[in-house]
Amino acid sequence: MDAQTPVTILGFAGSLRRASFNRALLRAAAEAAPATMQIRIFDLAPVPLYNADIEAEGDPDGVKAFKAAIAAAEGVLMVTPEYNHGVPAVMKNAVDWASRPPKGAVLDRKPVGIIGASPGVTGSARGQSQLRQAFEFTNSYAMPQPELLVFRAHEKFDAEGRLVDDATRERLAAWLVAFEAWVRRLS
Amino acid sequence: MDAQTPVTILGFAGSLRRASFNRALLRAAAEAAPATMQIRIFDLAPVPLYNADIEAEGDPDGVKAFKAAIAAAEGVLMVTPEYNHGVPAVMKNAVDWASRPPKGAVLDRKPVGIIGASPGVTGSARGQSQLRQAFEFTNSYAMPQPELLVFRAHEKFDAEGRLVDDATRERLAAWLVAFEAWVRRLS
Amino acid sequence: MDAQTPVTILGFAGSLRRASFNRALLRAAAEAAPATMQIRIFDLAPVPLYNADIEAEGDPDGVKAFKAAIAAAEGVLMVTPEYNHGVPAVMKNAVDWASRPPKGAVLDRKPVGIIGASPGVTGSARGQSQLRQAFEFTNSYAMPQPELLVFRAHEKFDAEGRLVDDATRERLAAWLVAFEAWVRRLS
Amino acid sequence: MDAQTPVTILGFAGSLRRASFNRALLRAAAEAAPATMQIRIFDLAPVPLYNADIEAEGDPDGVKAFKAAIAAAEGVLMVTPEYNHGVPAVMKNAVDWASRPPKGAVLDRKPVGIIGASPGVTGSARGQSQLRQAFEFTNSYAMPQPELLVFRAHEKFDAEGRLVDDATRERLAAWLVAFEAWVRRLS
Repeated sequence: MDAQTPVTILGFAGSLRRASFNRALLRAAAEAAPATMQIRIFDLAPVPLYNADIEAEGDPDGVKAFKAAIAAAEGVLMVTPEYNHGVPAVMKNAVDWASRPPKGAVLDRKPVGIIGASPGVTGSARGQSQLRQAFEFTNSYAMPQPELLVFRAHEKFDAEGRLVDDATRERLAAWLVAFEAWVRRLS
Repeated sequence: MDAQTPVTILGFAGSLRRASFNRALLRAAAEAAPATMQIRIFDLAPVPLYNADIEAEGDPDGVKAFKAAIAAAEGVLMVTPEYNHGVPAVMKNAVDWASRPPKGAVLDRKPVGIIGASPGVTGSARGQSQLRQAFEFTNSYAMPQPELLVFRAHEKFDAEGRLVDDATRERLAAWLVAFEAWVRRLS
Repeated sequence: MDAQTPVTILGFAGSLRRASFNRALLRAAAEAAPATMQIRIFDLAPVPLYNADIEAEGDPDGVKAFKAAIAAAEGVLMVTPEYNHGVPAVMKNAVDWASRPPKGAVLDRKPVGIIGASPGVTGSARGQSQLRQAFEFTNSYAMPQPELLVFRAHEKFDAEGRLVDDATRERLAAWLVAFEAWVRRLS
Repeated sequence: MDAQTPVTILGFAGSLRRASFNRALLRAAAEAAPATMQIRIFDLAPVPLYNADIEAEGDPDGVKAFKAAIAAAEGVLMVTPEYNHGVPAVMKNAVDWASRPPKGAVLDRKPVGIIGASPGVTGSARGQSQLRQAFEFTNSYAMPQPELLVFRAHEKFDAEGRLVDDATRERLAAWLVAFEAWVRRLS
């Protein structure tokens, strides 16, 4: 891959709530991405709950679009809340669909980056850890470090969902630089 | 609680597939339950993906029915597959909804039993472990032992989804006896 | 158990460092315990690394003392750091020994409480979650809630290792009240 | 790295028991390694329990030797049992020491492979998953797939600890080929 050509990243957030901090963090990432990285945002709303009987009749349109978008990207950025000490169903559902055939699961050998936000002090740490376990199975390349835990998220975003905390903005920018290098190395 | 009065259990499986091994295992549990325990089966199909914006307008009917069914039971039985080394989205989604207000989350101080099946050798072990972490947060009482991992599930059920493996039937029966005692003690 | 008779708790910390925040938190818990609860502190230093060949010749003296102390207590309090996103070896080692026969593992049906401290923002959350998984196997009764994560621990203790943060002291006091009720209920 | 030059791997097992299945699996891996890979076995017996006060006075000799051996290798092979649904203290202790300074932790950016054996059906799956979480923090490159779970280990080794099960030998050989490629790619 030519270092001049931007790497293409598909990003999605594990929350369907419009005013979600994690959707806001994903937008902030897309805006802060260096010129050498393009983050396309995918909304998970059209991806229904996984059902193998439905899958057997053919992937629903939302799933087809989701899998195609992952396949077309060089890396995947997952922005995850923590619900009940774990990965939210909305995010795990996206992974459960993407991990399935046909034609080879689209997550196989795909570079993955994980970040997340939560109102509490742990900043989605346990959600991120559970999500990461999935990539053992899907054979994806999840970047181990740096880690980005946006804790007390309500203090970091303004009412319009803009990331206004300078320290978090700097950590996000550094994270994106590391992620670009990870994707270039492993894709 | 009078030991003569049957304990009431709400059971659900973390798969929407009709021929699911975990749905079959749940049916087997309901049939094998001692006379002192009644297991009511709840189908998760009407529970949509969690969305806080929808919740803010009022729980959808499927969610209302699900929460009410948990509230009415003395214990909850969760039968979970393992997807991608973790808890399937369908099961986690049920927990994500049930853990929410209003009027106090219905899982608070509720006795919970976890079993599961998978075609592989681990018998849903990693799915069960991830699911269990949720109950730290919801303040539910998950029974620690005995453990029931139905591995190589395709060898344990017949084509009609009946549990035909004698060793597994015996382990299930013993598990149910232990679970009844757990629910009587903690509800 | 008579509510007048103090419940007896064995407490230990998952760090051998003298000035450890988690040892300090354990001392603070012992001092803050209500009159109806006595916390005895056990130092894990005499418990060697687990080795089944040594065990086969008889438990070392430190292990004998440790198991006997657990057996004599009505509940166990574990105060754990987080190392490398998980439970420290020092704490897991204590559990690995205690989970072993003879005469029935001393952790079987024992009420357990878990708290912890860390200098970072997550307050040992991932260490606590990993530790908790062990009690599925040992059949111990780990209290699910409340949770006590002492984050940014260096701001909460003074140079002598005294817990000087009022909010944390209040949360610890409330946690101890809940834990006493848990032990009385389940022992 | 020249593909003709053998890659050098440091291997260690998370058990101190002489007749350990995991030590036997490590020996089998060293013997089955292709000519293009050399696995040096390190015995963890001289690595004491982690204690930051001791570390502050200088690493004990066993720890110095262990860190130097990791630093000298291009990849690390960890063979882990599962104790109490998690990683054994002996294995976590090795990681807790190796993750520490000075001069940059020796696990940073190091390719890591994880396999394991257990007498039960899960084949150390939960031990492997917990161990893997550590490498998020140490910034090591843990190979996601293939997975090697040696279940019912007592049926796979003979009385002298030789791996005599053909299917397992084939899976181990395939795993080693994949691991060599992983190390060549990421070191």
